[in-house]
Amino acid sequence: MRMVDIISYKRDGGTLTKEEIAFMVNGYVGGVIPEYQVAAWLMAVFFRGMTPKETAFLTEIMLDSGAKINLDGIPGPFVDKHSTGGVGDKTSLIIAPLLASVGIRVPMISGRALGHTGGTLDKLESIPGYRTNLSETEFRHGLVEDGFAMTGQSRDIAPADKLLYALRDVTATVESIPLITASILSKKAAEGASALVFDVKYGSGAFMKEKSQASSLAHSLVNTGTAMGMRIAALLTDMDEPLGNAVGNFLEVEEALDCLEGNGPMDVMEVSLALAASACILGGKASCIEEGLELCKKSLQSGLPRKLFLANVSRQGGNMKHLLEMRKNYRSQYAVELKAEQNAYITRIDAYKVGLAGVYLGVGRNRVEDAVSPLAGILLRKKSGEWVDTGETVMTVYAKDGAGLRDALPLLKDAVSYGEIKPKKKPLIG
Amino acid sequence: MRMVDIISYKRDGGTLTKEEIAFMVNGYVGGVIPEYQVAAWLMAVFFRGMTPKETAFLTEIMLDSGAKINLDGIPGPFVDKHSTGGVGDKTSLIIAPLLASVGIRVPMISGRALGHTGGTLDKLESIPGYRTNLSETEFRHGLVEDGFAMTGQSRDIAPADKLLYALRDVTATVESIPLITASILSKKAAEGASALVFDVKYGSGAFMKEKSQASSLAHSLVNTGTAMGMRIAALLTDMDEPLGNAVGNFLEVEEALDCLEGNGPMDVMEVSLALAASACILGGKASCIEEGLELCKKSLQSGLPRKLFLANVSRQGGNMKHLLEMRKNYRSQYAVELKAEQNAYITRIDAYKVGLAGVYLGVGRNRVEDAVSPLAGILLRKKSGEWVDTGETVMTVYAKDGAGLRDALPLLKDAVSYGEIKPKKKPLIG
Repeated sequence: MRMVDIISYKRDGGTLTKEEIAFMVNGYVGGVIPEYQVAAWLMAVFFRGMTPKETAFLTEIMLDSGAKINLDGIPGPFVDKHSTGGVGDKTSLIIAPLLASVGIRVPMISGRALGHTGGTLDKLESIPGYRTNLSETEFRHGLVEDGFAMTGQSRDIAPADKLLYALRDVTATVESIPLITASILSKKAAEGASALVFDVKYGSGAFMKEKSQASSLAHSLVNTGTAMGMRIAALLTDMDEPLGNAVGNFLEVEEALDCLEGNGPMDVMEVSLALAASACILGGKASCIEEGLELCKKSLQSGLPRKLFLANVSRQGGNMKHLLEMRKNYRSQYAVELKAEQNAYITRIDAYKVGLAGVYLGVGRNRVEDAVSPLAGILLRKKSGEWVDTGETVMTVYAKDGAGLRDALPLLKDAVSYGEIKPKKKPLIG
Repeated sequence: MRMVDIISYKRDGGTLTKEEIAFMVNGYVGGVIPEYQVAAWLMAVFFRGMTPKETAFLTEIMLDSGAKINLDGIPGPFVDKHSTGGVGDKTSLIIAPLLASVGIRVPMISGRALGHTGGTLDKLESIPGYRTNLSETEFRHGLVEDGFAMTGQSRDIAPADKLLYALRDVTATVESIPLITASILSKKAAEGASALVFDVKYGSGAFMKEKSQASSLAHSLVNTGTAMGMRIAALLTDMDEPLGNAVGNFLEVEEALDCLEGNGPMDVMEVSLALAASACILGGKASCIEEGLELCKKSLQSGLPRKLFLANVSRQGGNMKHLLEMRKNYRSQYAVELKAEQNAYITRIDAYKVGLAGVYLGVGRNRVEDAVSPLAGILLRKKSGEWVDTGETVMTVYAKDGAGLRDALPLLKDAVSYGEIKPKKKPLIG
């Protein structure tokens, strides 16, 4: 077997066997196949794509390149949830305890903020003392006792994915549906997930700007995961405007708590419930979406999800009582109100620009090694479709420092569009 | 400027500026831009192509990466001829002295046999004593005195092409029209050619199997060369069957001499005259193909081209008298006749298979460092369209040794197709 033949076969639209893909990936990880040949292959895949079966092979080989989390001995069902990333997306914080409350265990392994998108780990760590670097024993305890646990990715998961991702990043081959699919699924499969709900976002604040791209990714995730014997559901959701009113780390924890108490913004609830209802089907707790929604709503009213969330906070090192006292008080001193300069409807709040402003404020980071601020963020007082009068507050902005505030404000101002005609409401899901 | 942006721009179908291409090529040659990024870019170019202007930029930058041959002070016009490679193609040996005889100087820099294709340098070196590693002074002397000189490529010509070609070879990106164009033209331009006739071959024995591919390359060569201010003509010629009756190194020198004496095979003469006539137009010696053909035919009849060929042999270290004595006598002892096993028309003689057999016989080589044999080769006694009776000789096969003969014979047998119906003659040119 020669790598150059594998490249030219893919280049000409051929379908590779598992042996050929293994030859390449394992040869690359083992240092036998040079980066330049893998780079050429990645670009050929960018243009030619891969079948679901090929993508499943690639995923399995990437998965097998590293360690796997062992959930043996813990009773199921297990369902994990994964989002492709957005702005103001705190649904994981709601869905995990909600599913736990209906008897589905959620072994949730999350990521950090990067670029304009937020990260669940950063949000959780804004709770003083909260730890996201659980040992396997701690992770298993959380799953058994509270029905869910929240941790970061361990170092030895899918090393082939880390290598391939780094190479994709410098060869302009990140945006390939099968390569994205294999990257996501190999990590999720290594983390023990056998059932997965995906929130595939589209719009300015999402990785996929176009709905058609998001739809392709959703289909690829479902087809590939299914080919691997996993149970997969995927929802397309709009990320053109930030989800909810809060964008920030502690601000989003607060809003998640609001949701668990029945006082959350409509859009956050709609997406959270839709994803949770799908998870209920995958977990065998509901036979259709309506039944799943009913079950989740009832459970929220019981207050159990909130209890489980707070139990998790305590278990993972946070102070539950302190957290509740901090609500609405724990704020940055670097704050300013952004006010409307006209009487008009807000026609759009661009999630991408809000997310980018968040990096200046301290919500997110441009480089993996940068620190984030727990207090930085944006509270949207108005959202698109609402009328504002001149001088009315559109958003309150909190920064890690004065420079961040100064840099973020022009972007945030630019993120808001005004118009005389009330914009039509776009569907959030589908 | 970032290489990853250049890759993604090309990936998405963009047109690169000269600065961007220079940044990449010079960065690659300078060791600043890694091979994996260039590999990804090459594959993006494979799929997206390059405009004639982009290809001209790439060619110029590759040309500028190395030395240039200086023809200053020698009166022109200069026209060079380049073939994309074939089996039995000895036209360079005929065209160079023919053009010299009508007042066009031919600074011919040729290559060696590789794979199934033959090489002009190997053919010339089959003449005992003939040297193809001329110094610049010797090259200039030959041009001034005989009107042409034949040498190999110097080491310091277009180093960027050498690096890029080596990378293309291992990343399945050799077969890209703009990359082939830039590779050919950068070398030819470095060799001082300002007017060039291309023989772009198609068919089994050519690099391009399909006429449509060859046509694309021909257009690309003309468009790109023209964009660089060169005068370019390109002919498409059929290489499905070996050209002429001789395939081999000394065997082809003999056949070239036959042609110069007016006794050459029709197909070799047709291609040689067509290429020479085009060169006459480029060199300002004719205003149309008919006029060029007339001029060349007349000159052949005068015997001057033959005289110039023999003068060149002497000048470059060969023994002219010895050469003429060796004709029809200088043969390998490992020889066998391949005979027809049926009464039938020959419907095809597959140039590719004959070329591959030539590697076993010692005509060509698989690796650049392998030696070739002057005596190895094939004399086709019949060609397609001719009738053979059982037992009649189809070809005489000469090898460097017994093993080569044994390995080549099945391939040669397989190269000949028979049929009951006389095949239609295909046009050789166009």
